[in-house]
Amino acid sequence: MNKRLFFECAYDGTAYSGWQKQPNAATIQETIESCLAKLFPKNEIETIGCGRTDAGVHAKQSFFHIDLPLIYSFDQLQYKLNNMLPSDIVIANIHEVQPESHARFDAKKRSYEYFLHHKKLPFHFKYSLFFPRHLDVDKMNKGALYLIGKHDFTSFSKLHTDVNNNFCEVYTAAWKKVGDQLCFEISANRFLRNMVRAIVGTLLEVGLGNIPPEQVKKIMQLKDRQEAGFSVPAKGLFLKSVEYDYL
Amino acid sequence: MNKRLFFECAYDGTAYSGWQKQPNAATIQETIESCLAKLFPKNEIETIGCGRTDAGVHAKQSFFHIDLPLIYSFDQLQYKLNNMLPSDIVIANIHEVQPESHARFDAKKRSYEYFLHHKKLPFHFKYSLFFPRHLDVDKMNKGALYLIGKHDFTSFSKLHTDVNNNFCEVYTAAWKKVGDQLCFEISANRFLRNMVRAIVGTLLEVGLGNIPPEQVKKIMQLKDRQEAGFSVPAKGLFLKSVEYDYL
Repeated sequence: MNKRLFFECAYDGTAYSGWQKQPNAATIQETIESCLAKLFPKNEIETIGCGRTDAGVHAKQSFFHIDLPLIYSFDQLQYKLNNMLPSDIVIANIHEVQPESHARFDAKKRSYEYFLHHKKLPFHFKYSLFFPRHLDVDKMNKGALYLIGKHDFTSFSKLHTDVNNNFCEVYTAAWKKVGDQLCFEISANRFLRNMVRAIVGTLLEVGLGNIPPEQVKKIMQLKDRQEAGFSVPAKGLFLKSVEYDYL
Repeated sequence: MNKRLFFECAYDGTAYSGWQKQPNAATIQETIESCLAKLFPKNEIETIGCGRTDAGVHAKQSFFHIDLPLIYSFDQLQYKLNNMLPSDIVIANIHEVQPESHARFDAKKRSYEYFLHHKKLPFHFKYSLFFPRHLDVDKMNKGALYLIGKHDFTSFSKLHTDVNNNFCEVYTAAWKKVGDQLCFEISANRFLRNMVRAIVGTLLEVGLGNIPPEQVKKIMQLKDRQEAGFSVPAKGLFLKSVEYDYL
């Protein structure tokens, strides 16, 4: 009999066209599913991810669920999968959950990090934006405060997405120094497509002095993607964690 | 008039066949020299490195010297070079030194680090050896103690090298935990070709219980490369620092 299993995973997104399966492109979901198909040849292999990271975006912690029979112990299954998966995708844990548990709908809180560096760093170029201009971090943090709370984030979303409403509740949003890098961390109940990268681009405009921190509030109120700043490259973006009540 | 300049640099060695120029292969030295040649079209461009890192080995800090006219400020020169160089090579500093200063001969102490990890880590596969077996770190550190002091390191050197003698004075050699990784750090007045990688391979044999820690001493005494352990892959190896009396 099948059981619903939650898989915790992590990946370097550099080589992939994002999480979501698509024809004619390497994706994280398809890479994982093709390994699962070899281990469970009699089963339908259909994973449901906690969300869809875009091409080039990384995940330090992500989840997906799938219904499978318990023909291996979780340790065995994790070991076999990690051996089969390429170096840039890792299964960190496997949990059995209730049959109605859902990796996407039950996620209560998601956190993202965006890294950038001012001085060229040879070991960070795959994981951090090189941004060699002076930034006023205090102003950027002032701008970030306007994001906190429940707001319509249409201005920070990719146009023509299929979601019904664009309200997100942002719990935290702040910049901090991490070694030689600057890191923006934001947590919310949900995120719209491209939202973090558009927010970071807008806060960089604030940090450069191109727009005042208060403008962030106005941009949200206008509900128009044209009003926000540029979208920063994917490589600095990490899905940091996803939280469930029951894990 | 030309001045002798010391350049401090760092690089991700993944894409290169080592520091040293060679025909038909991308090297760090040649990549840097071709940028310098564009900035100093009237000068002979001949850099002398502090040492030769092998193919795939990284450097957090390395040095080279070259004689050049002061037609740019050091800030300008560093800025221009970093713009011209690929993302995986960085100039961190430029110093004017005495005309007789020498990046290779004057280096008093060099330190290397070797990283490995037991659990698959998606963001370390380019910079750390995946080694999923139990290691007895206490034994490895016991074995490492025999390396300290002035010894003939023939047993840990690549055969048929062009150096006159194989004596090195090792100052420190120890394993430590660094986050999810294990790191071996070794410092000495000089290193022979392949020496760190052969030492790490031998200490892994100690950690696995294949040879006792005391065997490290015997291996050195036998002065025979066949006696030592395997040579670990380049990707986990970093030149960490190089010290001069006058910098």
